[in-house]
Parts: sequence; structure tokens; C-alpha cells
Amino acid sequence: MRIAIAQLNPTVGSLDRNFELVKKAYERACDSQARLLLTPELCLNGYPPHDLVERPETFTRTEAALEKLAALTSGKSCALVVGAILKNPKETGKKALNSAVVFEKGKQVFTQSKSLLPTYDIFDESRYFEPSKEVSVWNCDGKKIALGICEDFWAEDEELGRIYARDPVDDFQKMGVDLALSVSSSPYEKGKRARREMVHGQVAKKLKAPLAYVNQWGANDEILFDGASFVVGADGKLTHRLPVFAEGFGVFEYDFAAKAWKGETQFQAQEKETDADAEWRDLKNGLVVGIRDYFRKTGFSRALLGLSGGVDSALIAVLAAEALGPENVLAVAMPSQYSASISLEDAETLARDFRLRFEVRPIKFLFSQALREWSEGRGKLADLAQENMQSRLRGNILMTLSNHYGALVLTTGNKSELATGYCTLYGDMCGALAPIGDLYKTQVYGLCDYLNRTAKRTGQPLIPERILTRAPSAELRPNQTDQDSLPPYEFLDLTLQLYLEKRLPQAEIESEFKRLGKPTDGIKKTLRLVEINEYKRRQAPPVLKVSQKAFGMGRRMPVAKEIET
Amino acid sequence: MRIAIAQLNPTVGSLDRNFELVKKAYERACDSQARLLLTPELCLNGYPPHDLVERPETFTRTEAALEKLAALTSGKSCALVVGAILKNPKETGKKALNSAVVFEKGKQVFTQSKSLLPTYDIFDESRYFEPSKEVSVWNCDGKKIALGICEDFWAEDEELGRIYARDPVDDFQKMGVDLALSVSSSPYEKGKRARREMVHGQVAKKLKAPLAYVNQWGANDEILFDGASFVVGADGKLTHRLPVFAEGFGVFEYDFAAKAWKGETQFQAQEKETDADAEWRDLKNGLVVGIRDYFRKTGFSRALLGLSGGVDSALIAVLAAEALGPENVLAVAMPSQYSASISLEDAETLARDFRLRFEVRPIKFLFSQALREWSEGRGKLADLAQENMQSRLRGNILMTLSNHYGALVLTTGNKSELATGYCTLYGDMCGALAPIGDLYKTQVYGLCDYLNRTAKRTGQPLIPERILTRAPSAELRPNQTDQDSLPPYEFLDLTLQLYLEKRLPQAEIESEFKRLGKPTDGIKKTLRLVEINEYKRRQAPPVLKVSQKAFGMGRRMPVAKEIET
Repeated sequence: MRIAIAQLNPTVGSLDRNFELVKKAYERACDSQARLLLTPELCLNGYPPHDLVERPETFTRTEAALEKLAALTSGKSCALVVGAILKNPKETGKKALNSAVVFEKGKQVFTQSKSLLPTYDIFDESRYFEPSKEVSVWNCDGKKIALGICEDFWAEDEELGRIYARDPVDDFQKMGVDLALSVSSSPYEKGKRARREMVHGQVAKKLKAPLAYVNQWGANDEILFDGASFVVGADGKLTHRLPVFAEGFGVFEYDFAAKAWKGETQFQAQEKETDADAEWRDLKNGLVVGIRDYFRKTGFSRALLGLSGGVDSALIAVLAAEALGPENVLAVAMPSQYSASISLEDAETLARDFRLRFEVRPIKFLFSQALREWSEGRGKLADLAQENMQSRLRGNILMTLSNHYGALVLTTGNKSELATGYCTLYGDMCGALAPIGDLYKTQVYGLCDYLNRTAKRTGQPLIPERILTRAPSAELRPNQTDQDSLPPYEFLDLTLQLYLEKRLPQAEIESEFKRLGKPTDGIKKTLRLVEINEYKRRQAPPVLKVSQKAFGMGRRMPVAKEIET
Repeated sequence: MRIAIAQLNPTVGSLDRNFELVKKAYERACDSQARLLLTPELCLNGYPPHDLVERPETFTRTEAALEKLAALTSGKSCALVVGAILKNPKETGKKALNSAVVFEKGKQVFTQSKSLLPTYDIFDESRYFEPSKEVSVWNCDGKKIALGICEDFWAEDEELGRIYARDPVDDFQKMGVDLALSVSSSPYEKGKRARREMVHGQVAKKLKAPLAYVNQWGANDEILFDGASFVVGADGKLTHRLPVFAEGFGVFEYDFAAKAWKGETQFQAQEKETDADAEWRDLKNGLVVGIRDYFRKTGFSRALLGLSGGVDSALIAVLAAEALGPENVLAVAMPSQYSASISLEDAETLARDFRLRFEVRPIKFLFSQALREWSEGRGKLADLAQENMQSRLRGNILMTLSNHYGALVLTTGNKSELATGYCTLYGDMCGALAPIGDLYKTQVYGLCDYLNRTAKRTGQPLIPERILTRAPSAELRPNQTDQDSLPPYEFLDLTLQLYLEKRLPQAEIESEFKRLGKPTDGIKKTLRLVEINEYKRRQAPPVLKVSQKAFGMGRRMPVAKEIET
């Protein structure tokens, strides 16, 4: 049986555009003599559709697009499996279903709706969808095919915990199936792919059947999808994989007699690299795709950012240049009286080497004038207010340029800053998208190191070395460094990771630090900073999510609350 | 049977403070010879606790507080019904339960967990809680008592639709009960109280049993709770109600022989007013409580806002003065070359009449200097960029004052502006809280009218009449008015209400307009403005929710999406 997998990048809410993606893939599958084409979860609507599911237009438009898809299959021998939002036909329950629909010869021949609705972190599926209480198999050429929609095959994942009482795989196992298909839109997280492949290998083994898995690729708002669709044998072994963070189409033939996949597409050619470097490469590609898709899907082509001479803005400038082309990236240096001259030099060097557009717009005159106006008859403005004022003048400059040129501002803050509030609301937090808002400062350095190591091999431009070795500073007062206010990043980032991602309470973080022989004195203060700065994050731009727990839609904390850490 | 109802205002996450509230109420209930005390849903944790439910500290702290509560009841004849987060004892499913726990004589004698978990709008309960699959009755002095947790008694609400397959009230009906208790934290919406009381009247009739209902009051972040706890007879008729938007404690005796409530507390004394005015009064009180609690629960006492001479900032200044005391409200006029002199006059008059602190900080010099720096060698700055620059300079002034004085900025935008993007990100959108962000412009006028009518009766200061009669203007260019860019507010607000709250598609909004004899030409443009401005709302401050659908946590729309209206 020849199975085509189309790893597509749909746009949320764009039924017309998504229909065209499926149509092209279906034509290609027909040309390849595939017996069926597999497309991602909700690929007709784009995932996640959020509250668009609640709009009545969504049902009428989806139904119309599904009718057109059915018509495509008329007179063809290739079946089409497509993910779409269906109206729940029952009178009670949520109004929608998250479904995989099978079209064959012009007709809808099978439908399976999702049983397990992820409702945690960024997922809100119980908000919209009624779960399916049962599964059935699609009989195709005498073979019993199990259709799982994403989470349906994840019930036994250890990281998830046993949050579902029922496991649809058990039901399929009882029925006995010949082939399993997973229709997925599974978000990227650093290091998640191995886990995903392991979980699906176990499902295949349990069902004693081969499994084909399709994943969406691209980005929708904060969420990155890495694609990396694959097939595994009945023994649970992965044999073929589509590209990571790229369009992908593959035709894989399963020989039921020989119990083996024969595929025209093999693994993506890999450079020789360590596993750690492979993770950095995926991360970099994910961030580039995240920037590119956010711009494309909001209808913008040009970006601008403040280039301070520090490591965060350097990294974002390099990522944006790759995502949008350096000619579409305007880097703006905005020195004040507190900026070191080497900061401006390094910013200029980086902009020149990476062929970015570059402007210098000093804030010192405006800052001096604002300070003078402030102080008239009122004495000295508080230090913190002076620091934030500079940052907000820079924010105003960037936003004015944004309005003037029709370009989007990229926010340069990292996760360590967002977590501790070491950033200025309406100042350096300005922007349409925070590409590295889910990377701790130590990870920012790690990714820069990886980029420079790779660039050295390939002769590409380097991030200036001094940017990576200088002590980080906000340059908002004379001789300031980040470590005047924060613990060393090595300790800070570990504290944050244990608190935010591992959800450990303070006492357990302290135990872990002691076990590792690290100083525990900054921990309490760090946790307090996290808690009292919720109000800043509530107004932060969307952050590209790359970890298990990013700030944004997937973390919902009260602002007005008792601070207990 | 004497039943005490404690209408409490807990703080999210503050186990110690909430414990004290329950303790004081319990002592009062004992003093009143009550047989049981009823407290609101999750009142030990504060509602909504959001992702605090996922913190392991929450379980340990809640368990410790519950033990202390159990000890309180030792040797007393009053039972305590308290809402708290419990750990789900089962191995599968979500880790927490939303429960009502009954303590009597030092022991936990009964527990009922919530069956129906609201997961729509602002509610995310399926994210955290495992639903109870069954209900049982608490046997108290030979009476069978049904405990419903908030949504458990709402399954038959028509507005909600039949979103739940099971209705716990049916189960209770089959068992037969003598008394029903509802443990609730039910958010306020303009006009919702009548619906709430009707729904619970129907439950009582269905169960042929009296019902006592307790609701949280106060505000947590965006969400207002109006209290207004009540009791209804077995005939469904409401006989007693606790205050609206205020602390409340009542003891009500139900005579099972006479089938009637005898209560010490009667209805809250009402002024003679129309139903419409009663709604305006509740709305005003709700906004005042929302402001006050946000400040108190985040640890601030002073507010500041830009007072432009327009109606929005005038209303917020008046509300803030009532919430925090006028001496704690700093109103700042920030005129530019485009500000009418009467704007400043009206702002001054209002500040003087309401005894606010008042400062004038013109932006014209800074704006001129910024414009000069911008234009050097680059030609004229785009008009839109010039307008936003002014707004952002004002934002910077307010935030600098905020940093300097340790006061929170109140955001003055209304729902019509937020919906259409007629506001400047990081400019007039700056602030910690948007008190009228869920009021359409026409409602802003309506509330001001109500306030002035009431003030005339009581001799309180008035919002200057000219503020209510002048054509609204952002004053960002010469002779600008809102209606240069937007349809008349009467039409705009109706369009928005039908689109956002009633979820009608464009064609049906047009039909409705035609039916009403109104012009349809601005509708398409309005809907497009709503869609393309999602990015601004993503970074807006928390909005006090007073309608069925407010911007904020309860409305989750993709930013990068196809614009189809």
C-alpha cells in the first residue's frame, strides 16, 4: 500500500489558501500512484484556530471547502485524509469536533474525531471540541486502518502523566488493525522529537501494525511546528523521516507480506554533527521559520530592531536576516550618554558583516531635554524612572520607524529578562514578536556559539567575538552590568528552569543547588522577581515557544495575588 | 435549620489571608447559632487560581489550611462548608479537584467535587480539574443536602446552550433531597443577576427543595464578582438577598414544616430607581470594586492617569476617586499644539471639583524636538507616525511618573477603541488596568449620564457638561474628530456588539441593520478593523470584564491569520 504524506504549512483561518495546499498535495499524490494521502490535523483550518472555532462562519466555510475536496477525489484511486473542524451533530456537548475526514471517489467514506483533547499549556481543545467516546476502523482494500488524531496516540507518554482515563490505542488493539495513521499538529519543543518518535514506536508495537505520522510544519503566532513526519514499522522502528522545519512530501510503500516500508524518500541528509549541535540547528531553524511565518502570515516583509551591541539583539538580527533577507532588516543603534563606544562599534560591525540596513539615532539629546523638563521645580527624578525613560524613548523611536516604514519591530528580550522583569514595559519590551523570549540568557550564548562554529566551517559572517565575551549590560546608567541586579546567569537560569519548567517549589530548588554544590542565596529573590513581574509579561508580545513552558498563552498566572514562593 | 452565608472576597493564592476570612465568618456563624456556614467556591484559594493549581505548593498549603479549619469546628455545633482545591486521589486524570468540603466536630464529614467544569470564555477549569462523575448527598440531622459547585446547577441555562451531556441536578432529583446548597464564584456581567436567580429558582423547583446560594464578591484581575448571594424556596421564589458588590453575611432559617425561609437579613435596601438605573448602579459599583481590589491585591494605593478633557478619562478619574480616594489619584493633563484650550479647562474643572491631584505636563516642546530630530535629512515623518509619537510621549510621561511615585497608571481606552484599534500601542494603551476597556463608547456616555443624574440628586460634583456634549477627538492633528476615522458610535457599537458578543457573521449584521433601518456601509470596514488589530489587544492591559465577551483572557484569537469577515 502506497501512502503519501504531505507535511503542510497552513495559515490559521485561511480556508482558501489551505484548500489550495491540500489540492496540490493531492494531485501530487495521485501522480505518484499513492493509495491514500495523509495531511495534518486541522490542516484545512490551520492549527491552533483558537476562538475562530466559535465563529459560525468557520462551519460554513469548512463545509464548503470539504465539498470541494470531496469533488477532487471523484474518479481517482487515491483516498484523501484531511484534518478539519466539523460541526458536532449531537444536541448536547461542545459545538465542534476535531476530525479526520476520508474522501474517496467523490464521497466521504470515513470520519474519526479526536478522543483525547489536550487542555494544558498552550492547548485549549476542551474549550471548543466534544471528545469522541469511541473509535472505529476504516476498511480500505480489506485492511483495517486506525486513525488517531495527534493526542490520541500520546496517552502513554510519561512526561504527560496519566491525564486521560481512556486510551484509544487500547480500543484499536482490541479491534486489531493492519495500519495506523496519525493526523497531527504537534508543536516543536527543544529535544521533543525523540520523545515523539518513541511514543509512536510504542503505539506501533502495541498495535503490531506499521504507523504513518504526519505533522504540520511552520509557525502560527507563538507556536512552531517542526514537521519531521515519519513512518515506523510494526516493530516500532523508524525507517523514514521527512524534513525538519521545511515543506515535505513523501510516498512510502508498505509491503504487508514482507512487513516492511519501502520508501522513495529517505532520511533528510544530515551533516556530521553531535546530538547537541543537531538540537541547536533545529532550534535555529525553528526560530527562523517562526519569524518568517509571523511576517508572511500577518502580511509584512520588513523588520526593524534596536541593535545595542549586546548579545540578544545580535542574535535576533542574524536570525531575522536569515528569515527575511538582510535587505529587509533595519538595525537601529540608539546610543545614550551611558553607551560604551565599543557597543556602537560592535553593532556597526555586525550590521556591515551581515549586510543589514543600519541607522544611528542617538537618544541623548531627547533624554537630556526630557530630564530637564521633568526636573523643573521637582528635584531629581528617581534612578529607576530615569533608566526606564531611556528605554521608552528608544521604544518610541522604533515604533515611529515602524509606523513610518510599515515594518514590524522585533523584541530583543530573552527569557531570563522576561522572568525576572529585567526589562522595561513599553521600552525594550516593544515589538510585534519576541523571537528569543523563550531562550534563557545562557541559551542565547549557546546558540550564538553554535552559529559562529557553523559559520567558521562554511565561511559565513561571524557574530563579533567581543559581543559574546563582554559582560552583559543594559547601559542605562554609568558602568552598569546585569549582575549588579541579578545573580550570575548560570545560577539564575538553572533556578528559573527548575521553577518554571520543572515546577519545583523553593525548598526543592535549594536542595538541587546544594546537591550540585552551587550557592543558594539568590534563589528566593529570583522567585520573588518572577512572581512580582507577572504584570509585565501580561503585556509582552508573543514569544516563540521552544521549551516545555514558555511565557505567553501557555502560562496563565494571576497578576493580583499573594506573593508566596 | 439555620444556615449562615458568608459572602467573602478572597485573594488568589493567599491561603493565610483567606483562612482568616473563613475563620472570622465561622466564628460569627457559631455566635449566630447557625447549623452550618456556607462559603464560596475555592474561597480558600481564591477564584480563579489559574496555573497556581499546577504548582505543587498549592496542594501542601491547601491541605495545611484545611486541617486548621477542621480544628476550628472541634466541639462546635456549626458545620463548615468550604470551597478548596483538593488533590485528585486517582492515578489517572487531572491532578486536582474543585471541591466543597464539609467539616463538623473537627472532622471532614463530606466532600463533593464539581461535575461540570466550565471551559469557555474566561473559564479554563478542564485545564486543571478532573470532573466528578457522580454526586451524593450529605446527611445532616436527617436531612439530605445536595451540594452543587457553581456550574453544577447551570446545566439548563439557555444562554449557555446544552454543552454538558450530564446534569447533576437530575441525579439529585432521583435521590430526592431536602435542601440544596450552591458553592459559587460566579463572575458579574451587566444584567446577569436576574438570569442567575432564575436558573437557581428552576433548580429549586425541580428538586422540590429550598436552595441557598453563596457567591464570592470582589475582583481578581479582570474578573468582577458581584456577590448578591440569596436563598430561594422550594417554589423557586427568591426571598432574601445579600448585598451586591459588598461584603455580606446573613443567617437564614428554613422551616421545613412551614416550607419557608425566615431570615434576619432582608433584601438590600434599594433606592427608587428604574431597572436600567439599577444596572448602571451595579456596573459603576463593579468598576469601583474592580479598581480598588486590583490596587489592594497588588499592593498599591495610588493611581495616575492622563486627563485629556475627553469623556473616557473623565469617567475613569471619577471611578478611581471613589475607589481609592481622590487624594490618591493624580490626573495629568499633557496638552500639545493640537489640544483645544477647552480640553485643558475641562480637565482642570473636573480635577478641582472631584478634588484630584492635578499636574499639567505639556508634550509640545518634546514633540517638536523629537520631530526635528526625526526629520533631519529624511523629509516629513508620516502623519500616522506623528500621531502615535505624541501618544507615546504621553505614555512615557505617565510611566515615568508611575516609576517615580510608585503609582499605577490607569488606561483610559474603551471597548470601541480597543475593538477597532483606534488607540496607540505603548501610548494611550499604557497602564496596569483598563477599567472601562469592556464598555463601548455609547455605554461610557450612558454611565456618565447616570452618574450626573445621581450626583444632581445628592449634591455631589458633576462631570462637566461640555465633556459629555463635545464631539470626541484624539487631538493628535488639527481639528481631528473620532468620526473622521470611525462610523458614528451609535452604529459602530451596535456592529461590534453583534459581531463580538452575539458572534453574528457580516451578512447577518447587515440584515439586522437593514431591519432597523440603519446604514450598513460602515460594517465591513469595522469588522476588518477588529480583525487586523488583534496584535494591539494582545498587549493590552487587563480589562475589567462586564459583558458576555470582553477582550482579554476570555477571548483568544490568533494574530497571524487570514482576515476573513
